[in-house]
Amino acid sequence: MPSTNQVPHLQTALKGPLLELEKHLLDNRTAIESWFRKQFKNTPAPFYGSVDLRNAGFKLAPVDTNLFPAGFNNLHPDLRSLAVHAAQHAVTQVCPIADGVLIIPENHTRNLYYLENVYALQTILESAGYEVHIGSLIPELNAPMVVELPSGNALTLKPIVREGDRVGVDNFFPCAVLLNNDLSGGRPEILEGIEQTLLPPMELGWADRYKTEHFAHYSDVTEAFAQLIDIDQWLINPTSIPCGPINFKDRTGIEELAQAVNKVLKETQTYYDTHDISCKPFVIVKSDSGTYGMAIMSVDSPEDILNLNRKQRNKMASVKEGLQVEQMLVQEGVYTYETMKDAVAEPVVYMIGSQVIGGFYRVHTGKTATDNLNSPGMHFEPLSFEESCVLPDDSQTPDASPNRFYAYGVIARLALLAAAREIADSKGNLPAIDAI
Amino acid sequence: MPSTNQVPHLQTALKGPLLELEKHLLDNRTAIESWFRKQFKNTPAPFYGSVDLRNAGFKLAPVDTNLFPAGFNNLHPDLRSLAVHAAQHAVTQVCPIADGVLIIPENHTRNLYYLENVYALQTILESAGYEVHIGSLIPELNAPMVVELPSGNALTLKPIVREGDRVGVDNFFPCAVLLNNDLSGGRPEILEGIEQTLLPPMELGWADRYKTEHFAHYSDVTEAFAQLIDIDQWLINPTSIPCGPINFKDRTGIEELAQAVNKVLKETQTYYDTHDISCKPFVIVKSDSGTYGMAIMSVDSPEDILNLNRKQRNKMASVKEGLQVEQMLVQEGVYTYETMKDAVAEPVVYMIGSQVIGGFYRVHTGKTATDNLNSPGMHFEPLSFEESCVLPDDSQTPDASPNRFYAYGVIARLALLAAAREIADSKGNLPAIDAI
Repeated sequence: MPSTNQVPHLQTALKGPLLELEKHLLDNRTAIESWFRKQFKNTPAPFYGSVDLRNAGFKLAPVDTNLFPAGFNNLHPDLRSLAVHAAQHAVTQVCPIADGVLIIPENHTRNLYYLENVYALQTILESAGYEVHIGSLIPELNAPMVVELPSGNALTLKPIVREGDRVGVDNFFPCAVLLNNDLSGGRPEILEGIEQTLLPPMELGWADRYKTEHFAHYSDVTEAFAQLIDIDQWLINPTSIPCGPINFKDRTGIEELAQAVNKVLKETQTYYDTHDISCKPFVIVKSDSGTYGMAIMSVDSPEDILNLNRKQRNKMASVKEGLQVEQMLVQEGVYTYETMKDAVAEPVVYMIGSQVIGGFYRVHTGKTATDNLNSPGMHFEPLSFEESCVLPDDSQTPDASPNRFYAYGVIARLALLAAAREIADSKGNLPAIDAI
Repeated sequence: MPSTNQVPHLQTALKGPLLELEKHLLDNRTAIESWFRKQFKNTPAPFYGSVDLRNAGFKLAPVDTNLFPAGFNNLHPDLRSLAVHAAQHAVTQVCPIADGVLIIPENHTRNLYYLENVYALQTILESAGYEVHIGSLIPELNAPMVVELPSGNALTLKPIVREGDRVGVDNFFPCAVLLNNDLSGGRPEILEGIEQTLLPPMELGWADRYKTEHFAHYSDVTEAFAQLIDIDQWLINPTSIPCGPINFKDRTGIEELAQAVNKVLKETQTYYDTHDISCKPFVIVKSDSGTYGMAIMSVDSPEDILNLNRKQRNKMASVKEGLQVEQMLVQEGVYTYETMKDAVAEPVVYMIGSQVIGGFYRVHTGKTATDNLNSPGMHFEPLSFEESCVLPDDSQTPDASPNRFYAYGVIARLALLAAAREIADSKGNLPAIDAI
């Protein structure tokens, strides 16, 4: 695994506000951790999650919260025991008597990096003391399939079967079933109404989830959090508005989308002006549901939307597994000013339960600070965080790596809390959120 | 902190049974972890604990289970985040709304290594997001006392005060009060009947606790565990019998003690003979209550007891803070065959809640394999475990360090489970223990 003691360099003259933020986070650590404990007690964290962050120096914000995270293979092996303990707690909390876990992965069998992730997840759960098997939803799979991985390990995919109200493989029908499949293709019939504990619940699949809802909850969460530690909410909250319905193919709703883009650009410009930030605002337009970087555009003027050619519109019209795009999320773009040897580096933070268990940088050459790093076909090099995100060091500067990682862990948990509130909301029992 | 990638060498020709044991532990990992989860669900683990182990190559057993562990400063800094997460869980479990923790340490102000331990505990809890202050029981302390530590840090001891049914310092009266004082001097009046959660409860102080009860529970636990994974219980269980009352000063009960010693020596010899172990059995005689290595003898014949001189008898007659010795634990001695550059090395494993968070070796020169390493005035060098005890590696030999550490973590948790059952028993609600 590529790994180095160095962490990416934050290449911006505009570090002031962020240093201030990081210092605030450090100074208010006890209050922050205590607040998180209360919040996650009120609204339990999803089983796991990863959060993509952008660090602009003057702003630190999440851009994507994935509740079916891949990439566990990119975490640093030295931090593995954190994941093992967290997994034990997370499984025990929902299923105290579980002896085993059935993992249901995505159906892609050619993406060996994804399958390395499944293998890493399996190993984490096995180390936590569970029997683990992989139950695949691949329709044509009739017998166990062994996949040799680049790491030298082998992963065995078995066809998932249903017996009564339980799913499993062979004679293995455990209490806990872990989804590592974001259900972009919809809710699989075989999982409907099972009596086992499905982690996370199917309602969190992208077929049912909207990014705009997530960011609305994130805005509530950061409003309370900003009050708690007395910061400007803008520092951690990207402006996010929904826009739709839009049909790129027959060009309905394009005008409204251009207006929404304009609105976000203007608001951002106003903030930049009043805070002496000499950057050009940009906006990310992406499908409100779906994942995998499909149907995403980075634009810096309403004309970019109005002047889309047919090919660009076709691209925006389809997302993973053919889910039809109808509503868009129009979101303030946050610059990526972290670089590693001139390559753009985007941090991704991983959590199991409410605990941060590590992270890595997507280090990408040949991309600019405004591009989307999680695009299809894009290649990145993972750079594991060598330090945990839970041990800030007061004796170092606020932007020293243990402290920067702590800040990443805090922002990632704010996004996780937003997801937890999204879940509670969908069940109709969303508690109030208070700063104290 | 002294630290090296090397782990002590196991210097014995008799590794066979232990390799067998380690292999069994590895092969049955899922069953073991699942069993521990069930047991700790039935009988919750104490807040924290450390377990001293002895590794004879042919036998691996605990010799001391400390429920007020010192030595947190000896754990490897790389494993600190494990402790932080475990502390969060352990505090939350007993006191979900706690914002702060009051630590009550031992009264020794000159033992700077002990105070480094208190500082380490404070830092772990602070990193877990709690406000932490030290409330000292030192009678003559009227104002805060700042102690400069060898590490360069400073520890502030404040006089503990009581207001109504709460104890605290200044205006700090948190929900959770953590004892790091083994109460050898008895139960402090100021802590009686407080409404705060005292961790662990005062009943676990050495004034109320008997080692023979602990080892009786340990024997029950290992009987079930040996059934679970189909091993000979003897491999992990030292023969332990109570003997008393004894008064060393007026020589009453000495004869009975010699007989008890003889019984354990004979039983051990019989086992050695039938298993081709060519070692000379020995026996540890120690006070059934109390700690700190006082009132401990290593003997290899009943005559050693009968021929004690006045000085030796006086030494045995007193334990820490003058607690009168009345009953003794007579325990099969377990050889220490781990060495580091010819120095004897004794592993100590640390747990917070039911989670192993690390450990270290007491590396001691000038002592033999049968001596007690935790004697008063004895100097040892700590050698931190660099690896966690939670990640065995199937691709390595059973005695490779991750696997040996995993075995240590298992045996330490068996002792912790015995302590948990000791607590449940004292409350009159001891559940049955099953192998499955």
